[in-house]
Amino acid sequence: MPASPIRRLVPFAEEAQRRGVRIHHLNIGQPDIESPDTFWNAILEARPRVVAYSHSAGNPSLRKKAAESYSAIGIPIEPDQLLVTTAGSEAIRFAFLTSLNPGDEVIIPEPLYANYLGFAVEAGIRVRPIATRIEDDFALPDVEAFEEAIGPRTRAILLCNPSNPTGTVFTADQLDRLRDVVLRHDLFLIADEVYRDFNYTGRPIRSVLQLDGLERHAVMVDSVSKRFSLCGARIGFLASRNPEILSAALKLAQARLSPPTVEQIGVEGALDTAPDYFDKVRAEYQARRDLLVERLRAMPGVLCPRIDGAFYAMVRLPIDDADSFCRWLLESFRLEGQTVMLAPGTGFYATPGGGKDEVRIAYVLRREDLSAAMDCLERALREYPGRRG
Amino acid sequence: MPASPIRRLVPFAEEAQRRGVRIHHLNIGQPDIESPDTFWNAILEARPRVVAYSHSAGNPSLRKKAAESYSAIGIPIEPDQLLVTTAGSEAIRFAFLTSLNPGDEVIIPEPLYANYLGFAVEAGIRVRPIATRIEDDFALPDVEAFEEAIGPRTRAILLCNPSNPTGTVFTADQLDRLRDVVLRHDLFLIADEVYRDFNYTGRPIRSVLQLDGLERHAVMVDSVSKRFSLCGARIGFLASRNPEILSAALKLAQARLSPPTVEQIGVEGALDTAPDYFDKVRAEYQARRDLLVERLRAMPGVLCPRIDGAFYAMVRLPIDDADSFCRWLLESFRLEGQTVMLAPGTGFYATPGGGKDEVRIAYVLRREDLSAAMDCLERALREYPGRRG
Repeated sequence: MPASPIRRLVPFAEEAQRRGVRIHHLNIGQPDIESPDTFWNAILEARPRVVAYSHSAGNPSLRKKAAESYSAIGIPIEPDQLLVTTAGSEAIRFAFLTSLNPGDEVIIPEPLYANYLGFAVEAGIRVRPIATRIEDDFALPDVEAFEEAIGPRTRAILLCNPSNPTGTVFTADQLDRLRDVVLRHDLFLIADEVYRDFNYTGRPIRSVLQLDGLERHAVMVDSVSKRFSLCGARIGFLASRNPEILSAALKLAQARLSPPTVEQIGVEGALDTAPDYFDKVRAEYQARRDLLVERLRAMPGVLCPRIDGAFYAMVRLPIDDADSFCRWLLESFRLEGQTVMLAPGTGFYATPGGGKDEVRIAYVLRREDLSAAMDCLERALREYPGRRG
Repeated sequence: MPASPIRRLVPFAEEAQRRGVRIHHLNIGQPDIESPDTFWNAILEARPRVVAYSHSAGNPSLRKKAAESYSAIGIPIEPDQLLVTTAGSEAIRFAFLTSLNPGDEVIIPEPLYANYLGFAVEAGIRVRPIATRIEDDFALPDVEAFEEAIGPRTRAILLCNPSNPTGTVFTADQLDRLRDVVLRHDLFLIADEVYRDFNYTGRPIRSVLQLDGLERHAVMVDSVSKRFSLCGARIGFLASRNPEILSAALKLAQARLSPPTVEQIGVEGALDTAPDYFDKVRAEYQARRDLLVERLRAMPGVLCPRIDGAFYAMVRLPIDDADSFCRWLLESFRLEGQTVMLAPGTGFYATPGGGKDEVRIAYVLRREDLSAAMDCLERALREYPGRRG
């Protein structure tokens, strides 16, 4: 596994920090929102005498509460149709290992979440990227494009909805077309829905578990990391109505014994968080999104697509090379002692050469800082020696 | 991955419980010892506002403290030579994935910890068991046996020391011979040392990181699960002096983002636990071991080897079939409304047919309960219809 483009930047960021430069971190999806009190209160109240293994599929009480909270948002699911995983990361790993055999292929719309590539290497499976275009706001391609991409070893399609890194929310129409493809070729449809609540369209997002006829095909990956600003809790879910997927995932879960006990207790509390907790969070992110889009679109030569969800923007910049530009920002650029750290687009493409003029921006800072970061970017694009156009 | 023999017993245990039978659980290594206050105090004191991702290799302060605690027991190691993992389970998985390629072989003395087999399947590697004998107290076999087992795809030897499931503590001589084999064939030596503190020999246990000349070959797997009765915390360590192993493990760690944040904070506190905390724990386990061995050796037809460490005994029983016997204990045997749950020996053998007359006993209960469990076993062996000899 090669080091990812963003990891290669870390030494330069550390060096800049040592020199006292203030870096605006728009490179990673770590929200600055406070984790809810319900999480901590549940832990303090329970404080078990022995921090013991939980059930490998997660605490039964947590599975029950999670199933109820899915049902409450129109995704009817039974407690035994979901497993508690060590965050969304493990849910993705389990989804790969249970849906595909080594040598099989999974189709993923590109640009894609970089860590999918790492998990695919671990599972011995191939990623077949399918292109989406910034000019189309990264919409899913036509059925024909999927049909062309499907080969004899294709076993699954993976969708991140809303999408990291593009912020795209896939429409009901796009999902219906995808369902038809999945059924025609008897594939698994794995949907990573960890950004479900970060949806600024005003329309509900359709979960893969709500698509008719996919009972045996749909695998949902979820996590509390983003919704409750609990990235460090490492609690996620794998849900499916396919008993073979569930039984295979349970065996993987048993091999690693159990997800973290203390944090399962906290998350059970967090699921009781009042619904308006998230309304405020969403409003804040929507305002950040608005600010970001407005600033980016005012910069000459920058292409910022429509962003409907998550907290990322994949934007095209007038630059020669995203890796060089992001490194230059850390090494050489300063605006009043500040600079900005971005994720080079190249890390989000499995296709060689993809993303060379794109960066991913995670708008996870309060507006004041986001605005300062945009000041940096605007000036940097003017000064960058590798500017194009 | 087939369901393990112990998992197949679970429905029978649940049914017995529904009928009000009291089951003495000697089937799983979940200690009943209280987790230390230092763990909880550290969490309560820190209570971070945002439960954020930690560094993928673990919190720097935890790595530093862990390195210091290894150095304090004569295993000199730098903070950057260890990674915090999501328990020993992940450390084993990372050790397999970094030391072996798919199709490669790892030699493991048998009987072996059943979950190694699951992780091997996941990593696409083969387990080559090497026999140890109950009559020899499961000592490591001679160099010749290893030489015979090593083939063109052999890349590593894995040792659990002290051993789960046998309780064997490997001697300095045995480890020296193994080191010679490892050097001669340029293999990795992975040592799972999670039971290091459960050592009743009075002599220190030699860590794989203390073997001369193995700087590039030794990979240590560790965990706080057993030492601090923190099985549910899911915090472990992978340590090595080989920079390639560390760098490959870091990439795997980055793909899954970070180990659990809250529990890392707790474990940093737990590492400050006064040294005498464990003296009491060890004395308690030693007393349990003594009771167990005495009771087992008094049962006709039972072979109980010497047990020097961990909290398991792998014993030979006068029975036709361990799976049938363990199921019969749950389904049909009662002594004053009680029975005992044991792990069938078959789950600890990769060799087909191995362990049919053996069971693994985890002596993780207080002596009063352990004694009642031995009463059950003694009577059961007299009544069991499949008794032999």
